[in-house]
Amino acid sequence: MIRVVCKAKLKPGVNIEEYLEIAREVVLETRKEKGCIMYTLHEDINDPSILTTLEEWEDEESINQHNKSKHILRMVPELRKLRESTEINLYKEVK
Amino acid sequence: MIRVVCKAKLKPGVNIEEYLEIAREVVLETRKEKGCIMYTLHEDINDPSILTTLEEWEDEESINQHNKSKHILRMVPELRKLRESTEINLYKEVK
Repeated sequence: MIRVVCKAKLKPGVNIEEYLEIAREVVLETRKEKGCIMYTLHEDINDPSILTTLEEWEDEESINQHNKSKHILRMVPELRKLRESTEINLYKEVK
Repeated sequence: MIRVVCKAKLKPGVNIEEYLEIAREVVLETRKEKGCIMYTLHEDINDPSILTTLEEWEDEESINQHNKSKHILRMVPELRKLRESTEINLYKEVK
């Protein structure tokens, strides 16, 4: 299993609801994908302009397919317009 | 429930095994704590010097108690000596 943390910081003045409307659609579509175990959207409890997905995927191939999916190619550019920065890390557990 | 991402970047040249030895003890002790649902250590698949705990806690009070626990007060300063940076975010899920 691979865990992914995708942390976005919104640009100052961006309407958070506008961002969430698109992000919620990404969540709904992504949860239908093969290999997606968990895909949840989060808000930093100290800074509502930090919005992060915490994800669990079966393997890297599922993530590669996800990155090429229609909904990601259509909606992520829209989300990125509203972001100041995006930080993505892929993790494997250390026992 | 609150999810926590604690992302550490090690200083160049630090022996990762030296870091992991302490970090694994933190994991073992923390999992015994009240309110700890999940506490897992991860390595970035593209950069082994990025080590991140992905955590789930019942509430903020559990996290406050965790931050005051003996094992955290003893071992986190040791871990920080080996880190270049530490980034901690507390998250609530957005539905």
